[in-house]
Amino acid sequence: MASAIQTLPGFRDFAPRDCAIRNYLFETWRGVAQTYGFTEYETPLVEDTELYLRKSGDELPTQLFRFEDQGKRDVTLRPEVTASLARLAARVQRENPKPMKWFEIGQCFRYEKPQKGRGREFYQFNVDILGESSAAADAELIAFAIDTMKALGFGPDDFRLRLSDRDAWMIFAEKHSISDPSALLNIIDKMERMPDDKVSDLLSAIGLTRETVDDFIKNGSSPALDAVRADLSARDLLSYTETDLSIVRGLAYYTGVVFEIFDVKKSLRAIAGGGRYDDLVKGIGNVDLPATGFAMGDMVIRHLIEENTLALAQMEAWLDRQSAADVYIVVADEEKRSNALRLLADLRRAGVSTDIALTAAKVAKQFKSAQNTGARLALVIGSEFPEMQLKNLVSRSEETIHPNADAIAHIQAKLDSPDGPLLA
Amino acid sequence: MASAIQTLPGFRDFAPRDCAIRNYLFETWRGVAQTYGFTEYETPLVEDTELYLRKSGDELPTQLFRFEDQGKRDVTLRPEVTASLARLAARVQRENPKPMKWFEIGQCFRYEKPQKGRGREFYQFNVDILGESSAAADAELIAFAIDTMKALGFGPDDFRLRLSDRDAWMIFAEKHSISDPSALLNIIDKMERMPDDKVSDLLSAIGLTRETVDDFIKNGSSPALDAVRADLSARDLLSYTETDLSIVRGLAYYTGVVFEIFDVKKSLRAIAGGGRYDDLVKGIGNVDLPATGFAMGDMVIRHLIEENTLALAQMEAWLDRQSAADVYIVVADEEKRSNALRLLADLRRAGVSTDIALTAAKVAKQFKSAQNTGARLALVIGSEFPEMQLKNLVSRSEETIHPNADAIAHIQAKLDSPDGPLLA
Repeated sequence: MASAIQTLPGFRDFAPRDCAIRNYLFETWRGVAQTYGFTEYETPLVEDTELYLRKSGDELPTQLFRFEDQGKRDVTLRPEVTASLARLAARVQRENPKPMKWFEIGQCFRYEKPQKGRGREFYQFNVDILGESSAAADAELIAFAIDTMKALGFGPDDFRLRLSDRDAWMIFAEKHSISDPSALLNIIDKMERMPDDKVSDLLSAIGLTRETVDDFIKNGSSPALDAVRADLSARDLLSYTETDLSIVRGLAYYTGVVFEIFDVKKSLRAIAGGGRYDDLVKGIGNVDLPATGFAMGDMVIRHLIEENTLALAQMEAWLDRQSAADVYIVVADEEKRSNALRLLADLRRAGVSTDIALTAAKVAKQFKSAQNTGARLALVIGSEFPEMQLKNLVSRSEETIHPNADAIAHIQAKLDSPDGPLLA
Repeated sequence: MASAIQTLPGFRDFAPRDCAIRNYLFETWRGVAQTYGFTEYETPLVEDTELYLRKSGDELPTQLFRFEDQGKRDVTLRPEVTASLARLAARVQRENPKPMKWFEIGQCFRYEKPQKGRGREFYQFNVDILGESSAAADAELIAFAIDTMKALGFGPDDFRLRLSDRDAWMIFAEKHSISDPSALLNIIDKMERMPDDKVSDLLSAIGLTRETVDDFIKNGSSPALDAVRADLSARDLLSYTETDLSIVRGLAYYTGVVFEIFDVKKSLRAIAGGGRYDDLVKGIGNVDLPATGFAMGDMVIRHLIEENTLALAQMEAWLDRQSAADVYIVVADEEKRSNALRLLADLRRAGVSTDIALTAAKVAKQFKSAQNTGARLALVIGSEFPEMQLKNLVSRSEETIHPNADAIAHIQAKLDSPDGPLLA
């Protein structure tokens, strides 16, 4: 007997429950996108590796899932979507009114050691506003990110959005006569992971003290940050944020307001992150298109939901509503199977989710199958056909459908009008 | 100026309209799956190449998108989903009542010369019934395939499902004392693409005449085919089918009833195909689980829709209903922007799809933006706030929302109750 072939390390099978949880995330993400008036797009899963080289400024990101295809091309399973978005947006921006408010949901890949909450493939939710340089676009995007967390059932005690602005550091650098602001940003980016004395040494080498920097991290600002905060305050979302200028986001391509969403317990890495990237579309697609965007992955967020009582209860309630079928046809007399099949076809054509035991089975077993599908109604077809019995599997009540009744319309009405227990 | 980086040959960007068309297919597919009581699953996009070797019986399919990963593994971007499904189904079948009625929607890949209607990546809709060996499962699956075509707007003059059964040829082979039935199946599989004299030579070599074979192709049957036809007849779907025993489907792993859906004009290859594969789950996952399934790709079906008046009109009507936003907030007085932002947030939180001009703009320009989003209502916030104007952008009517009115509830009611022109 040959051994079973497993999934590759870091890749996942989605059995029905896992797939339903994935779909819950997708539906919630799409729901927020819809209330915000965003439009969906998609880009390829495989790209010319050059695209990521171009994006990150000649310094390839590590952990690329990179290979040579049969045509000897250097290609990569996409690690993220923004580079592809920049190409697509540049190509089609003429025919799209600005701002372009776009979102995407799809798989990304990275080649690294799989660990808890981090696989070699994952789904990512990408949200971007292109063609608008004002801080109002940053605020709209940040509000979107916060409302996404709220839509998933997280409250102000669960997460915090840390707000920052790379331009604030530019202003700071000018005020303190720092000749190379990018060296300063580089220190800020790494200081959380460095020993204190090392940080102080690096800062003093460019003429700064730790106190000056720490004070600016907590109390500094910028015109864009002030505008974003005023906007979020008008939307009643400011309490979900805190200004933290230590967030600069390593990647070279960010240009202004940046942010990250963190688990308040800090037990996990950032839940989502993003910011303004006004030069990327020009670098990749030769079109001047200011932009801001954020991304959120499915693995960390699922983990967080499963650890959060309210978010989990909301997801479980959603999962409970996902029945395989609403109506189950019980064939109590095999002589009437043709009639049952016809009713099955008619119910489905009317849009009613309907299932049936494919082969002859005891009535009790068919009722058990009905339960397994989550059906609310069982339509029993027996020797009395065209008279039938309709059983409400929730309230356990029962009624007769008479030969001349319009069974389809009757069942549809039953499903549409929740009568007491059906509301449960 | 650096040249723009293109998508790789055979890969597609989905700009918003293309993505909406993709989503139309997904929604239609999922809709049929729901009425049939099928449950969604997913499997990885990258698999151990061995999985496909195991599936196809030591003869690897050509055109695999195959490469070596950084861990020196021989891996493949999945060309199809059935092999992965067999693994997953074997692993979880104990905890799932039979039959398992499962579907999947996701990308597949093949490395071949891209051509019209055939790329290196495509979406595939996979529908399978596992754990039921009777012809009733074949009939349920075939009915699903036909109803999928109908749901997309295709009628009996547009497509035909060709029904066959490899077991019918086994019975035929026994009757005609053919010692190697697989040699016969091999001829049948290839005869459409071979010159007539070559076919006759091959057949006579195993003791058959072309006439005998042609007659059986048209008039032959099997117990399973008879049962499937009776079942489809009860469902009023038989007229969409024709028996054509020349369909044997090349792949070695099919074991019983097989079928293909063809464009009646035959201008394109098969639209969908599938059949029974009772041995595959055992071969891959060491579990005895009879199964039948079919797959349909997105590229051929989109092409067919665009060539079909009714199917295209149905899709266009769906696309027209996909507005980016339902309500557009027009800020007629920038002094009131904070109030506008608060209303924007409240409307969205109430689930109303709402957009706004992010920066100050002339009122006429904002109304133009409202049109671009497809909004049905414009909420005008000006100096009279909290009094506001609500304009119906379809009927061109207008009303005043008074300061004490519940604007959110009023707008929700407006959107829910189509009043005349809103029905359009």
